[in-house]
Amino acid sequence: MAADEEDLSHHHDTVRLEAFSDGVIAIAITLLVIEITVPHVEGSESLASALVDQWPSYVGFILSFITIGIMWMNHHTMFKDIERCDHVLIGLNLLLLLAIAALPFSTAVLAEYLDQNDDSRTTATMVYGGAFTATAVVFNALWLYASHGRRLIDRHVSDMRVRQRTLRFIPGPVLYAGGVGLALLTPWLTLALYTAMAVLYLLPLDDPEKSS
Amino acid sequence: MAADEEDLSHHHDTVRLEAFSDGVIAIAITLLVIEITVPHVEGSESLASALVDQWPSYVGFILSFITIGIMWMNHHTMFKDIERCDHVLIGLNLLLLLAIAALPFSTAVLAEYLDQNDDSRTTATMVYGGAFTATAVVFNALWLYASHGRRLIDRHVSDMRVRQRTLRFIPGPVLYAGGVGLALLTPWLTLALYTAMAVLYLLPLDDPEKSS
Amino acid sequence: MAADEEDLSHHHDTVRLEAFSDGVIAIAITLLVIEITVPHVEGSESLASALVDQWPSYVGFILSFITIGIMWMNHHTMFKDIERCDHVLIGLNLLLLLAIAALPFSTAVLAEYLDQNDDSRTTATMVYGGAFTATAVVFNALWLYASHGRRLIDRHVSDMRVRQRTLRFIPGPVLYAGGVGLALLTPWLTLALYTAMAVLYLLPLDDPEKSS
Amino acid sequence: MAADEEDLSHHHDTVRLEAFSDGVIAIAITLLVIEITVPHVEGSESLASALVDQWPSYVGFILSFITIGIMWMNHHTMFKDIERCDHVLIGLNLLLLLAIAALPFSTAVLAEYLDQNDDSRTTATMVYGGAFTATAVVFNALWLYASHGRRLIDRHVSDMRVRQRTLRFIPGPVLYAGGVGLALLTPWLTLALYTAMAVLYLLPLDDPEKSS
Repeated sequence: MAADEEDLSHHHDTVRLEAFSDGVIAIAITLLVIEITVPHVEGSESLASALVDQWPSYVGFILSFITIGIMWMNHHTMFKDIERCDHVLIGLNLLLLLAIAALPFSTAVLAEYLDQNDDSRTTATMVYGGAFTATAVVFNALWLYASHGRRLIDRHVSDMRVRQRTLRFIPGPVLYAGGVGLALLTPWLTLALYTAMAVLYLLPLDDPEKSS
Repeated sequence: MAADEEDLSHHHDTVRLEAFSDGVIAIAITLLVIEITVPHVEGSESLASALVDQWPSYVGFILSFITIGIMWMNHHTMFKDIERCDHVLIGLNLLLLLAIAALPFSTAVLAEYLDQNDDSRTTATMVYGGAFTATAVVFNALWLYASHGRRLIDRHVSDMRVRQRTLRFIPGPVLYAGGVGLALLTPWLTLALYTAMAVLYLLPLDDPEKSS
Repeated sequence: MAADEEDLSHHHDTVRLEAFSDGVIAIAITLLVIEITVPHVEGSESLASALVDQWPSYVGFILSFITIGIMWMNHHTMFKDIERCDHVLIGLNLLLLLAIAALPFSTAVLAEYLDQNDDSRTTATMVYGGAFTATAVVFNALWLYASHGRRLIDRHVSDMRVRQRTLRFIPGPVLYAGGVGLALLTPWLTLALYTAMAVLYLLPLDDPEKSS
Repeated sequence: MAADEEDLSHHHDTVRLEAFSDGVIAIAITLLVIEITVPHVEGSESLASALVDQWPSYVGFILSFITIGIMWMNHHTMFKDIERCDHVLIGLNLLLLLAIAALPFSTAVLAEYLDQNDDSRTTATMVYGGAFTATAVVFNALWLYASHGRRLIDRHVSDMRVRQRTLRFIPGPVLYAGGVGLALLTPWLTLALYTAMAVLYLLPLDDPEKSS
């Protein structure tokens, strides 16, 4: 009885942590839009062309929105397997939320400088990719901490599923970091890579729920 | 027993998806206000007239607020009939949230250019209507995917109710797209159409709960 | 049985409506802070005095924060007595959220012009009070609609409690409207009235839960 | 039976209060990012160095994010022990949310003036520390009110645990106020103290859940 009650209370803890995380991620993803400014048109300039000239803002908004959305899904799926909370997990989760909350800023940097000269464009793309990389690194740290020796894993989750999840998460930071490197060649390769990652995830090729 | 437990877990999934969607929609609808700027009054100009001069901001705020509010209600009602989640549904819902999160931007474009010259005004209205149209198209795609062959529909929902919902959703993108076309004649027709759509929905002529 | 199930589903509806309303109100109340700008200090000006000069921003922030907080509490308490949802209630609640979501704007207008010349100050205070008045009017309309003939009231709530709530809500719009009138004499009377209303509510003189 | 039902309803009240508080805190913590502006690079200036020059913004963002995150955790843990709500608690909680909602502003003041001349830097740091101090004071007032004579404490919580929590909370305002004083010597001591407080809390040296 006592053990069961404790389980319940631990489960309740995860629920609150997830709800707070959902709140922060929902706000970060929606705040992306306030970085898109309304163009000021003067004289004979047409609003249509001024809006089209802002294409880097739309690229940044869409790519970041889908990427953060995928992070939310992964966060949500991961916490289905995590049964208990401890102080380290709460701390790592706070660092993860910090990284996600910073993404509207790195997106704004990309949007501002993607159509500028080569130097600024490369820097902006590296900042953008670096922020994604940092987020993915903390994500993996959190999962590895929770899953190492099944430290905080729900007893009903199979070892195979834990291993599958670990294998699915590991490529993230590697690919994002690769994108930072590609920016030295050309930012377009970076954006193509990140777009491919987002599209691949959204396509129903690999349903993470199927294996559960 | 096992089947019931699975149902429950699927239901739980929809709950989290709905909660995240509610969060994004609540933030997008409330962010509309930060696009209304406080006028700067200089010299002998009166604040009252400067505030009145900003009427396009209020028109955009109110029309977008009510329209997003109606979208929230439709989203909420639709998910009452959806029992299960799959990868495609999650992806389509993310695209829907992306479209809704972009509405504060298209509203700000309308507010900035509705009292400008004809050319800018027409463009701004088409952008505004285009954003609504895109949102309504994704909305229908999501419902058609979920309801096709009752793919993800709750078993307790009648076929007739599914059909009714489909018929109720289809006019949305058509009317919003029609509004984009009307902007070529005059933006006022577009806004009159969208206002009529909002008012009609808010009036208790057709209670979607009655048929349930 | 069937009746009970229907009750439950209706109750579930109110829960979602309340959660969405809580979200919008929580965002509106927190967005108040982004209307306080960081002062730009130049030359020999001291940051301390520049911060002090911004007192109207702090007055507006604190007064609006507490007033919106009280509105949230009233909204929350009111919905404890409302058992069912219908289309009109959803529409009125959407209008109420619209009015609340607009308050960061009216607060920013007050903050910008409270230390300006008499004319602008009076206008800004009237806009500020007018926004509160409109909110309180919609609030009362919602409650009167729900409580008229106990239309949507929970069967466990006594008639006396419904009457008490009605009597407690009615002074709101009258006092807020009175504050708009007082602004014609001097804005300070308006702010004193609204402050008194906020303080009185926060003091434990009259506990709305006691009578329940 | 009646007593149990009342308990449940009181518990329900705390749930709603906590959910609203979680919402406000989640928004305040995420809004911190919109105070970081994208630098405008002109001529031969490099974007990289312009981004590095903005280090006070990153320091403020990270320190405030972690501090607010810790406040959320404390709020959440504290309310696990609080069983009942009354009018005073709701009022004190509203003041606490007001203090937390103001933190993005004090953070922006710090970020703007931390690399300016000594005078502005000292003032900005004192404002920053003063806002944390005020938050910690209201936090303690809320806990002392709820725990005095076990006024609103859950009957299952031991006296020892109440005392432990009181002892854990008391150093907060003292240390934050000490940081305000240290700013008169040098702002770096203030920031070092606050950073140490954040790091110490995140390290698993003292797990508040262990004693429960």
